[in-house]
Amino acid sequence: MRAEAPSAIGAAADLAAAVTMAGGSLTALDVVESGLDMIVVDVTCDAVDAAHADQVTKSIADVPGVNVRKVSDRTFLLHLGGKIEVVPKVSLKHRDDLSRAYTPGVARVCMAIAKNPADARRLTIKRNTVAVVTDGSAVLGLGNIGPAAAMPVMEGKAALFKQFGGVDAWPVVLDTQDTDLIVEGCFEIERRLRELLDIPVFHDDQHGTAIVVLAALTNALRVVRKEPTDVRVVVSGVGAAGRAIIQLLHHQGFADIIGCDRNGAIRPDNPNLDEYRRWIADYTNPRGGQGTLAEMLVGADVFIGVSAPNLLTGQDISTMADKAIVFAMANPDPEVDPFDATKHAVIVATGRSDYPNQINNVLAFPGLFRGMLDSGACEITDRCLLAAAAAIADCVKPGELNANYIVPSVFDPAVAPAVAAAVRKATAPATA
Amino acid sequence: MRAEAPSAIGAAADLAAAVTMAGGSLTALDVVESGLDMIVVDVTCDAVDAAHADQVTKSIADVPGVNVRKVSDRTFLLHLGGKIEVVPKVSLKHRDDLSRAYTPGVARVCMAIAKNPADARRLTIKRNTVAVVTDGSAVLGLGNIGPAAAMPVMEGKAALFKQFGGVDAWPVVLDTQDTDLIVEGCFEIERRLRELLDIPVFHDDQHGTAIVVLAALTNALRVVRKEPTDVRVVVSGVGAAGRAIIQLLHHQGFADIIGCDRNGAIRPDNPNLDEYRRWIADYTNPRGGQGTLAEMLVGADVFIGVSAPNLLTGQDISTMADKAIVFAMANPDPEVDPFDATKHAVIVATGRSDYPNQINNVLAFPGLFRGMLDSGACEITDRCLLAAAAAIADCVKPGELNANYIVPSVFDPAVAPAVAAAVRKATAPATA
Repeated sequence: MRAEAPSAIGAAADLAAAVTMAGGSLTALDVVESGLDMIVVDVTCDAVDAAHADQVTKSIADVPGVNVRKVSDRTFLLHLGGKIEVVPKVSLKHRDDLSRAYTPGVARVCMAIAKNPADARRLTIKRNTVAVVTDGSAVLGLGNIGPAAAMPVMEGKAALFKQFGGVDAWPVVLDTQDTDLIVEGCFEIERRLRELLDIPVFHDDQHGTAIVVLAALTNALRVVRKEPTDVRVVVSGVGAAGRAIIQLLHHQGFADIIGCDRNGAIRPDNPNLDEYRRWIADYTNPRGGQGTLAEMLVGADVFIGVSAPNLLTGQDISTMADKAIVFAMANPDPEVDPFDATKHAVIVATGRSDYPNQINNVLAFPGLFRGMLDSGACEITDRCLLAAAAAIADCVKPGELNANYIVPSVFDPAVAPAVAAAVRKATAPATA
Repeated sequence: MRAEAPSAIGAAADLAAAVTMAGGSLTALDVVESGLDMIVVDVTCDAVDAAHADQVTKSIADVPGVNVRKVSDRTFLLHLGGKIEVVPKVSLKHRDDLSRAYTPGVARVCMAIAKNPADARRLTIKRNTVAVVTDGSAVLGLGNIGPAAAMPVMEGKAALFKQFGGVDAWPVVLDTQDTDLIVEGCFEIERRLRELLDIPVFHDDQHGTAIVVLAALTNALRVVRKEPTDVRVVVSGVGAAGRAIIQLLHHQGFADIIGCDRNGAIRPDNPNLDEYRRWIADYTNPRGGQGTLAEMLVGADVFIGVSAPNLLTGQDISTMADKAIVFAMANPDPEVDPFDATKHAVIVATGRSDYPNQINNVLAFPGLFRGMLDSGACEITDRCLLAAAAAIADCVKPGELNANYIVPSVFDPAVAPAVAAAVRKATAPATA
């Protein structure tokens, strides 16, 4: 914030003290103007959240003689004007450049593609480009905030695509009417797009999450020395992410999975199941468990939550099997307080960056699309998803693996190339 | 091209001679491999067109002992992998970056936009972004080549948008079915998009061309010392560009315009005129001229062609008024051979870069959108178009203006800022 203070000895110290008193973490004090009676100081500090920032501001404003001119927020400053840009890859400095990149030279390139449309992959951005699409109806667990408000997240994904995967991604937000229908229909939408389009189609909230969960769970089981075929897994939430997680774990060979919605365990004898719950009923819950989420948790080895905040207590976690694994990923508040869970589980993971073991889709999507674009394959098969998960898991070396490090850092530059290589291999035609 | 030649003294000289003999312009000879009996040489040279390149290649292949391994085309090489990319504007190097640009920090930015959607302009790329859209049905006079083949041109436009206007542009090619209908309906499409969208909508083939034509004509009339209100203008072609040119010249005060299609002059008594020809009939041809294009040209001061190649001869141009002005812009072959036209007209302009006075939309669209985005205005009014044209014309200083320099260079860095400033002014609310 920018503040005016009396130009007395100790004025800067008073400001610093005010920040610290309110629990703010001071980064710097820069005097930007100095007069006979008054100085203007830029105070840079970290606060825990917006409410805390207000407290820090108030603490400064309360210093006698101090007047707060303006408060800026570094997060908002970073988003000003957006986070991505489109830049030419070719020089356009003189006539020769222009006549190759644009008219008249470009006409020959156009005609070559008109003659052989497959050349578009070679001679345009098609080969390296993906669209990041949303209608803003379910972004980051923020509810139906609409397309405009979803843009900062989509731009962030596009930036991460380039940063980690070298993929050129462009955000597309759809201003649709029937957003509720679209949320309900996201499986159907993905299926129809896959049929309609000759490009890879991927619902990140489903499959991105499932890949990283499987990677984390693979390593978690290595830590506790249990086998996928032996463990009992309880999944809370059968929305987009939950269903995709259950299906991917099933394909990986997990034999004892129980999916729970707000009515408890999903069983074959539940009436009126929709198509996807029907699949869950048919392929999971082999022991026919019946009851609430908390009841299902008794004796389970693994809890995976992609549902709602604070559904469980530490006490619930204490009923799980020995060496329990808890992935509580509801955003921003997990299904169980991670601190409480840690008292009863060996491994705890969340979707948050302020606890160990962050389950973050960034580990999956840049490398996955890098691999798909490189191979030119159109269909993202279960084989691709399993290969991507294995590659992420294997980025944590045996010497690094422990209960608080079951997934690699999102900044590990080896992850995206490893995922891409695995996906390229998984999409390659089988050789006899 | 890469060629193997015997490693004898004079081998390189033989290759150079072969290029020159076929009329090629040699840039360089690079020996990339050398053996006991053989050298491998990269020969770089310019050819006039693809057929000529084949001749040069054949000339080299015909040198005794020489084997051409591979021929590349610098224009195609430049387009490999596309001409634009999407890059992050923000650093994403460590956790602090990530938690501001993406989760969890981004959530606060999303919620701010959800609360006040107008903030999307400030906090996302919306403020600086345009889409460059085509269905590929009429690109560069290449005919209906379809969306994939149109991509190189759209990418080129996007690159020029950034290079000259600092605008982030993204190409969108529409794979539609009824492309003929869309060509016929481009006015209607533009009108409906303008009604539907809260962003500036601009059909470049119409208005971009009209702006640059008006700019060029303004300066051409300065050179020949004639007034817009006094001259007779004949426009050949009443497609998208022709109609827009006629309307803009009319708004600028040109009083005597005659529009011609393949049936000759458009007059109020023509039966069955469509809506746009009806407008032309009602607002132009004040002397009621009737007859073919060549007949209309007799005594005219200005010819503007946006129609088809080789409709006119030098003889036709010789029937025009004293100090005639000829803009023959059919692509790639003008309505009249520019060399023949120059014998009878004082000023000749084309759409081509290999003659003086190139009428190129690049002079208009980057600056126009820079200005529109800066002002936040939605509607591109005639006032904006006229202001842009005047700004382009005025970029040619009085001391520079002559019959062969009526438009500024497309590389003049002053053009886009001048156009942007004029457009910002034209969109500003009128002050009493």
